[in-house]
Amino acid sequence: MHSSVLPTINTLKQPTSSAWVEQAIANLDTILLDHSHCERKAAGVALNFMFRYPSNTKMVRELTAIAREELEHFELVNQWLERRHIPLAPLPPPPYGAGLKAQVRSSEPQKFLDSLLVTGLIEARSHERLGLLATHCPEPDLAKFYRGLMASEARHFGTYWVLADTYFNRNIVRQRLEELAIVESDLLANLHPEPRIHS
Amino acid sequence: MHSSVLPTINTLKQPTSSAWVEQAIANLDTILLDHSHCERKAAGVALNFMFRYPSNTKMVRELTAIAREELEHFELVNQWLERRHIPLAPLPPPPYGAGLKAQVRSSEPQKFLDSLLVTGLIEARSHERLGLLATHCPEPDLAKFYRGLMASEARHFGTYWVLADTYFNRNIVRQRLEELAIVESDLLANLHPEPRIHS
Repeated sequence: MHSSVLPTINTLKQPTSSAWVEQAIANLDTILLDHSHCERKAAGVALNFMFRYPSNTKMVRELTAIAREELEHFELVNQWLERRHIPLAPLPPPPYGAGLKAQVRSSEPQKFLDSLLVTGLIEARSHERLGLLATHCPEPDLAKFYRGLMASEARHFGTYWVLADTYFNRNIVRQRLEELAIVESDLLANLHPEPRIHS
Repeated sequence: MHSSVLPTINTLKQPTSSAWVEQAIANLDTILLDHSHCERKAAGVALNFMFRYPSNTKMVRELTAIAREELEHFELVNQWLERRHIPLAPLPPPPYGAGLKAQVRSSEPQKFLDSLLVTGLIEARSHERLGLLATHCPEPDLAKFYRGLMASEARHFGTYWVLADTYFNRNIVRQRLEELAIVESDLLANLHPEPRIHS
């Protein structure tokens, strides 16, 4: 990990608003259910990279570790749902994911670069928001759980960034990350009315 | 696990031919590479079930465990590839998977039942063939590795069977499994010329 060149959480152009924190804390059960979907999707995204680029050895090895960790978190969140008697159920996603996906260019190798950076940005935002939940959640056990997950989300962002840096020229990576980070913050500028991890 | 009603490996209608064993032992490197693809696909299949049927709590919990285990095996197989300097590379699949997939009926709930049973059959066949590799592989360390993986493949077959039994009437499950098991063995009746786990 080239920590000296690693843009961490300050990659996010705008911090999360206090309106999101209020919305989330007032709807912890829905946030937990959405979080379950997010962890499953994050595992699915890591696996998709491996299906699309099966010969990129470094990427495959790193994302295997990430997919395993996301599935572990998925299981942990589902245990929280069970404890709170929240049934697993579909939940319409906020526009955030589709909005970011629309930024991914359709031809290679740009598609690969954009996919790595978009996924990294989602991990960075998740890290920031789990941190806010850890700080503001009124239930100590749940706050502690969020604190425990935070570290790996930050590491995941780092992994996607290092992978982009491995397969692409650093200046191109930086410039594209800058563009995508602006879109990422713009997508969250207006609070989505349904409480979600990325509302 | 209802072990008394669990059809285990005898679900397979025909045992693997000695021709497959000879082909596999003569092509251990290709078999290892194909095995890597199989483990990644198995994790992908488990995850796909969770995306398609996110509210089936028992299924989601069981398949989370399976997906994590398949990814662990994927990593272990990839370590073997690295040790033998076999680069990760795509490998055209044998007709087996597509042949079984073609048996899955397109409308629900039959699609769900067939998908569970087909996946279970693939796991049962993998279990049988890893056992043959464990017995016949001339390299003791690799033989030991295959022996270590066998137990979980058998358990995976059991899990898919129990899930079918959970969501469907047992008589319907038995009858459909019988039909699919015949197709499964038929698909392997002629050895595929390219060495694969399911050639």
